[in-house]
Amino acid sequence: MNGACIVGQSGGPTAVINASLEGVIKAGFRNPDITKVYGALNGIEGIINEQIIDFSDEDMEEIDRLRNTPSAALGSVRYFLGDDFDKDDSYKKILATFKKYDIRYFFYIGGNDSMDSCHKIYQYLKQNNYECCVIGIPKTIDNDLVGCDHTPGYGSACKFISTTINEIYLDTSSYKKGRVTIIEIMGRDAGWLTASSKLASLNGADPDLIYLPEVPFDIDAFLAEVKKIYEKKQKVLIAVSEGIKDKNGEYILKYRNFNNNDPFGHLQLGGVSSVLCEIVTNTLGFPVRAIELNLPQRCAAHIASLTDIQEAYMCGKKAVDYATKGESGKMISLYRQNDVTRYSTVELSSVATLIKTVPENFITPSGNQITEEYIKYALPLIQGESPISFRDGLPLFTKLKKKIVKIENV
Amino acid sequence: MNGACIVGQSGGPTAVINASLEGVIKAGFRNPDITKVYGALNGIEGIINEQIIDFSDEDMEEIDRLRNTPSAALGSVRYFLGDDFDKDDSYKKILATFKKYDIRYFFYIGGNDSMDSCHKIYQYLKQNNYECCVIGIPKTIDNDLVGCDHTPGYGSACKFISTTINEIYLDTSSYKKGRVTIIEIMGRDAGWLTASSKLASLNGADPDLIYLPEVPFDIDAFLAEVKKIYEKKQKVLIAVSEGIKDKNGEYILKYRNFNNNDPFGHLQLGGVSSVLCEIVTNTLGFPVRAIELNLPQRCAAHIASLTDIQEAYMCGKKAVDYATKGESGKMISLYRQNDVTRYSTVELSSVATLIKTVPENFITPSGNQITEEYIKYALPLIQGESPISFRDGLPLFTKLKKKIVKIENV
Repeated sequence: MNGACIVGQSGGPTAVINASLEGVIKAGFRNPDITKVYGALNGIEGIINEQIIDFSDEDMEEIDRLRNTPSAALGSVRYFLGDDFDKDDSYKKILATFKKYDIRYFFYIGGNDSMDSCHKIYQYLKQNNYECCVIGIPKTIDNDLVGCDHTPGYGSACKFISTTINEIYLDTSSYKKGRVTIIEIMGRDAGWLTASSKLASLNGADPDLIYLPEVPFDIDAFLAEVKKIYEKKQKVLIAVSEGIKDKNGEYILKYRNFNNNDPFGHLQLGGVSSVLCEIVTNTLGFPVRAIELNLPQRCAAHIASLTDIQEAYMCGKKAVDYATKGESGKMISLYRQNDVTRYSTVELSSVATLIKTVPENFITPSGNQITEEYIKYALPLIQGESPISFRDGLPLFTKLKKKIVKIENV
Repeated sequence: MNGACIVGQSGGPTAVINASLEGVIKAGFRNPDITKVYGALNGIEGIINEQIIDFSDEDMEEIDRLRNTPSAALGSVRYFLGDDFDKDDSYKKILATFKKYDIRYFFYIGGNDSMDSCHKIYQYLKQNNYECCVIGIPKTIDNDLVGCDHTPGYGSACKFISTTINEIYLDTSSYKKGRVTIIEIMGRDAGWLTASSKLASLNGADPDLIYLPEVPFDIDAFLAEVKKIYEKKQKVLIAVSEGIKDKNGEYILKYRNFNNNDPFGHLQLGGVSSVLCEIVTNTLGFPVRAIELNLPQRCAAHIASLTDIQEAYMCGKKAVDYATKGESGKMISLYRQNDVTRYSTVELSSVATLIKTVPENFITPSGNQITEEYIKYALPLIQGESPISFRDGLPLFTKLKKKIVKIENV
């Protein structure tokens, strides 16, 4: 099928979401079925409002640099599409834009919320007999998409986290008498990112305790562990997921007053390390330090994993390959065969809004450490470093012109 | 003068304090006047308790790797030496160790508190007619040592901060409607580190507002600025020093209850970004995000400045050169001549416990931005990247054997 393609980015950015974009653009340019490679600014919103750019207007040098540029170069969005096609005008507008620009291929790079949007658009287009191949491209630092061995974005986040934990370990080890250092890592429902703190143990920088949301958090057991370790070593290094909950399913973070919510209505997390520090110092009297790794977990492109970048790129490329072979309503999935990452597709319907948590065999029976099996799983994902161009001592990131395409209404 | 040398590290670690150590070790090995190169574990404490290692026991490969290894490889200490030599036993013990090990050269790598210790030891040895050349080697990410154009450790912290601000800027720009993002940067009394957030503007990632402790902080003026910018752009990026104070000299941080103190009795800072976020959201109702850059500012060796590493190394080497030429009671100082960093010495007494703040011409009259003159000053300090060895996807850091030297009492 001949026609234009459009690509959008959605949800929380990652260090390599632009590498997938680069993969789509370059494969799109090369593919004889694809007449134009468009980009939608701020995801679906750009399609609805016709904020669309044509990548042939951009310099190739800037497109090459996408692989080392963090965040969503096209801009991202959290846009909720209604369940009822008739009640949400957005669908009509999306279809109108698709018709106007002769868009026959739609690629959407995002996490589980975005895959849900992608699936709805796919269904709506099908219902309206508009021929268009819709393919989702996975991205999330959270690694919680079902149907994927791992997700693009996760490896780079792991590399940043484990490198930073290694550096903090050395820093906090420099004094004989240290602190209880609690490092807070992203992960609302799944502890994949927090688990990656364990990779630092390969350099001897082993966190003493690691707490994931998969295991109910018990304050008393936690304090007992901290006491035991601090009395022995005069310092404790703890990695904790922002999303840990007690046995009643209550966020530990909720033991504090101040909070605010994100636009999706999710509880805005962050701060559980401070809450725990307060409890430790009030109960045990030990000196404490809370460290939230915060946004750099998803945007520290300067220490991205080359493996992750390459896989993210391949997901973009594969999306074009599969779509132009007629596949639709699918998401690119990654699996491993003899330690090599391979690509396939899964139904969007089987992915949307679901969450893959850390399996039991990656967590020790004590519930506060990570197993060798996890290390075997995750280690390949952080391998390699991307050669980065620096200018003025700073990494050089892509700057797109973003000239909006104007097409007259027919 | 023939004899052994000993080197120690003190105060808060930096990304390049080990590069200075490497400089001392290598120059010490090569210098014909120096019979042994000893290292004191945990600074002065290692001298007092005879926790001393001999660098000829260490592998050269590990010593080479010091330049890329953050934190204090010998261990650090915050040790307060009394003003009265007769009342503090430590002095006698230090002299005894120096005699026992025939130590004739003492190198101490540290900040202003450490230079104070260094100066006291110098005076005590002199008073007791023990021949020993004492040289301080500057280090501090804070850049607040008087007698130095800049300090080793600062450039790497600037490179980490400006790179991270650049990445966070891209991340927070990805949504059309964003937040008020407040990035908290180290600096108790001087805003040097916070000023470096401005370097990101060279990549177009310009913080909207920058607040240093040098300028009294006014909550109302701050809220007015935030409101104006947010209403225009729907996002605000703010860099703020942890040490900002109001016009009465009160820490803004103190508007919160929970605090704890460090072993030196200093107020433990950190958290002012959360305090400000709380005020912004309660007063203006805008969505907020607080980001403390925290410890990585002083230990993110993976993004260290090559210029900084080389200068830190040179400070160690120069200390050996000056000492073996007979200088004592001095600190190595850095100055610039025609844009080239050169090395000299200043009296320890002129440095100890003093603080160099950010000069007026580096801050705009509005008090919430940084000038071009600062950029000209700081830009050379972040130039270059050090080639780092990775193993298993993680930076490879020095591991010393730290075999304690045993010398029989005479």
